[in-house]
Amino acid sequence: MTIKELKEQVFEANMLLPKYNLVTFTWGNVSAIDRERGIFAIKPSGVPYEDMKADQMVVLDLDGKTVEGTLNPSSDTPTHIVLYKSFEAIGGIVHTHSTMATAFAQAEKDIPCFGTTHADYFYGAVPCTRMLTDDEINNDYEWNTGLVIAETFEKRGLDPIATPAVVVRKHGPFTWGKTADKAVENAAVLEVCCNLARLTHCIDADIPPANKTIMDKHYFRKHGANAYYGQR
Amino acid sequence: MTIKELKEQVFEANMLLPKYNLVTFTWGNVSAIDRERGIFAIKPSGVPYEDMKADQMVVLDLDGKTVEGTLNPSSDTPTHIVLYKSFEAIGGIVHTHSTMATAFAQAEKDIPCFGTTHADYFYGAVPCTRMLTDDEINNDYEWNTGLVIAETFEKRGLDPIATPAVVVRKHGPFTWGKTADKAVENAAVLEVCCNLARLTHCIDADIPPANKTIMDKHYFRKHGANAYYGQR
Amino acid sequence: MTIKELKEQVFEANMLLPKYNLVTFTWGNVSAIDRERGIFAIKPSGVPYEDMKADQMVVLDLDGKTVEGTLNPSSDTPTHIVLYKSFEAIGGIVHTHSTMATAFAQAEKDIPCFGTTHADYFYGAVPCTRMLTDDEINNDYEWNTGLVIAETFEKRGLDPIATPAVVVRKHGPFTWGKTADKAVENAAVLEVCCNLARLTHCIDADIPPANKTIMDKHYFRKHGANAYYGQR
Amino acid sequence: MTIKELKEQVFEANMLLPKYNLVTFTWGNVSAIDRERGIFAIKPSGVPYEDMKADQMVVLDLDGKTVEGTLNPSSDTPTHIVLYKSFEAIGGIVHTHSTMATAFAQAEKDIPCFGTTHADYFYGAVPCTRMLTDDEINNDYEWNTGLVIAETFEKRGLDPIATPAVVVRKHGPFTWGKTADKAVENAAVLEVCCNLARLTHCIDADIPPANKTIMDKHYFRKHGANAYYGQR
Repeated sequence: MTIKELKEQVFEANMLLPKYNLVTFTWGNVSAIDRERGIFAIKPSGVPYEDMKADQMVVLDLDGKTVEGTLNPSSDTPTHIVLYKSFEAIGGIVHTHSTMATAFAQAEKDIPCFGTTHADYFYGAVPCTRMLTDDEINNDYEWNTGLVIAETFEKRGLDPIATPAVVVRKHGPFTWGKTADKAVENAAVLEVCCNLARLTHCIDADIPPANKTIMDKHYFRKHGANAYYGQR
Repeated sequence: MTIKELKEQVFEANMLLPKYNLVTFTWGNVSAIDRERGIFAIKPSGVPYEDMKADQMVVLDLDGKTVEGTLNPSSDTPTHIVLYKSFEAIGGIVHTHSTMATAFAQAEKDIPCFGTTHADYFYGAVPCTRMLTDDEINNDYEWNTGLVIAETFEKRGLDPIATPAVVVRKHGPFTWGKTADKAVENAAVLEVCCNLARLTHCIDADIPPANKTIMDKHYFRKHGANAYYGQR
Repeated sequence: MTIKELKEQVFEANMLLPKYNLVTFTWGNVSAIDRERGIFAIKPSGVPYEDMKADQMVVLDLDGKTVEGTLNPSSDTPTHIVLYKSFEAIGGIVHTHSTMATAFAQAEKDIPCFGTTHADYFYGAVPCTRMLTDDEINNDYEWNTGLVIAETFEKRGLDPIATPAVVVRKHGPFTWGKTADKAVENAAVLEVCCNLARLTHCIDADIPPANKTIMDKHYFRKHGANAYYGQR
Repeated sequence: MTIKELKEQVFEANMLLPKYNLVTFTWGNVSAIDRERGIFAIKPSGVPYEDMKADQMVVLDLDGKTVEGTLNPSSDTPTHIVLYKSFEAIGGIVHTHSTMATAFAQAEKDIPCFGTTHADYFYGAVPCTRMLTDDEINNDYEWNTGLVIAETFEKRGLDPIATPAVVVRKHGPFTWGKTADKAVENAAVLEVCCNLARLTHCIDADIPPANKTIMDKHYFRKHGANAYYGQR
């Protein structure tokens, strides 16, 4: 893959965010990594989607040094770097302030797996991180946002490929996937699942999550060696 | 009806799902049966709606043997087969993960008949099935999903033509009708009724359902020998 | 006004219902009356909006006798007749199953005047009728629906021009106005006010309605001899 | 800036209100001030957006005298005048009845800063004013609406540039900014934040607002001397 192709892939994936109603104004960003070269492309900071061009994507290495591009990269770039370093199997990352996922982040709650729609994409609850300390906020905030996500998966023993989403407490969602496109699909599905979860909670605040048997059934119907959903 | 016409009918009915905002990505499927020949056509598994063509519909007999088509049929095909076998008056079936109906499935609740909008289409509460057992989930899951729907109607003494919808616990809605088009219309109306029901419940969680007199009036104003709604 | 003009006016007003997202499928109808001739035009029963033509509007007199048109008029025609007879100042009537207003009907609640948006259009709470008796439902149902609306305004001492809307218990909203267009505008605003009311109630279930001073201020800013909103 | 340019700017900003789904019918208005000349342009009262032309904007001085234009200015013009006089750093003002912000006004509640989306635009809670007295409503209502907004900021020691929004009790939102465009952006973001706040409250009614550290971090990441978001 050439750098030009990487930038085009990232541009196209960014343009899916307004298409799927996941962003307001300039909020949100997508990146994709070329693992062989150790470089990734990301949306420039604060540029409106309607004016954005593939050529404006910023390419950086994992030390945060710009390899190609004249604009400032997304202010969330350090979070993306930590996630690429911590989760070695992922190829793309998305950050949005999508409404329903952000509401769970603000309410400081995991998103329970209430049914098969969730289990088709996320294995178990989507976690909400702990609050960053004052010190973590005041110094290297975006870097520490990445660290607290990695810590959450580490401490809970979660596989980031099986549960490719998180909500950062008082902030909003990050999702990822094998590719940027897959990360955007996960961002869209997370929004659907959060909407379903808050509606389920409204109808009956005491309802338990789906049991492990149905969760396993749906997750492994779509993922892994014995998957049988779709065309193969 | 030729096989080509059956496939076109099923294709057109499937394309109504995104038009009515009942599906996200590839979730959801419609089938229609030719009762004389004992064959039905159904959406292929995991194919995006925007790329789908009438020719890709898969035609099967009621033993699940493919009669025409090269793609895998929807993974929910066994559920459709059980429903066609159990409910002999129906000609089309729809499965979606539409938001409001899925929220009721996740909340493990019947959808009460709170008013005339519901009574115009569904006679009485739309039932929520019991949870499948671990064994039913682990072996022949989609077949057992069909059986638990049939069991729900059997045990409650419900007429599947008068109440052409169900929500499968922790999963989502299935609807049906005399034709695939009618099944899609029922899927769209179920979504409206679920939205109305959750809003009604939000305004007053203790409000009772509509009484039998008004329910009968509206149902039989539109259905049966004495119907007087519409052009006849 | 010729009969042709009356039918075109009613057709155009009916077509505003899907434009303003107030109807699903064929649910809903608009009529307008020519008071001098004592005839009114109304939508035919069960005809989809996308196929409807001005020429299909049905014209009737106030005894319910068809003056012009070959299709069955809306099944709600008797309700319209009672309202035209009871509320002599009105020129147009709308019935819909719009989501938020229907939720209040199903929850059997008046819509409180919680703020200036409501007071700009409706003077005080929009009433919810009592439930029809079994006898009123089983005999001349649509006629009795009109009577219970008129009774509600009579018993509560409400002016139908100042409060041009009602929700019929377990059913849905009727609105009216000096013209069919104004009746549709009132239907759209009722839906907005119902949405605002249920959201207000969600944020604080104990909040009182707006006081009489602010209600009077806004209502009379837009209506009556001392109105000063808009161009005059 | 010529008067023609001022009118065009205000016209364009007004046309963003329907684009961003912030208005129903003619509700809502935008103005912008030319501080050097001491004149501002504002939407005419009760004119539908689809028919409106730049040339119809009304230009007034801060005594409320019309400088240019033949139509009546918005009935909320006196509120705009008081705000321009009280908040000297602002260049544009927006009033809408946008759904979520109006729900908070009707529920008589401040909008808490529940997360970073809010903190990116509004420093701390967006205040809800006290109720106007009967006397303030009956005499110079729109002028007193401006005064109660100014009083709210004064009494609470709020900086109108750091918190460029308010909800007027039982009425709806006013927002402002350095320009009319910025004021409209703030109106759109206020609506998003109110939606997030009511959803957060639905998920957990007892959740506290974001702490000062994260609020400061996000606000000052985008505003002031040390801002580093976007292109500079």
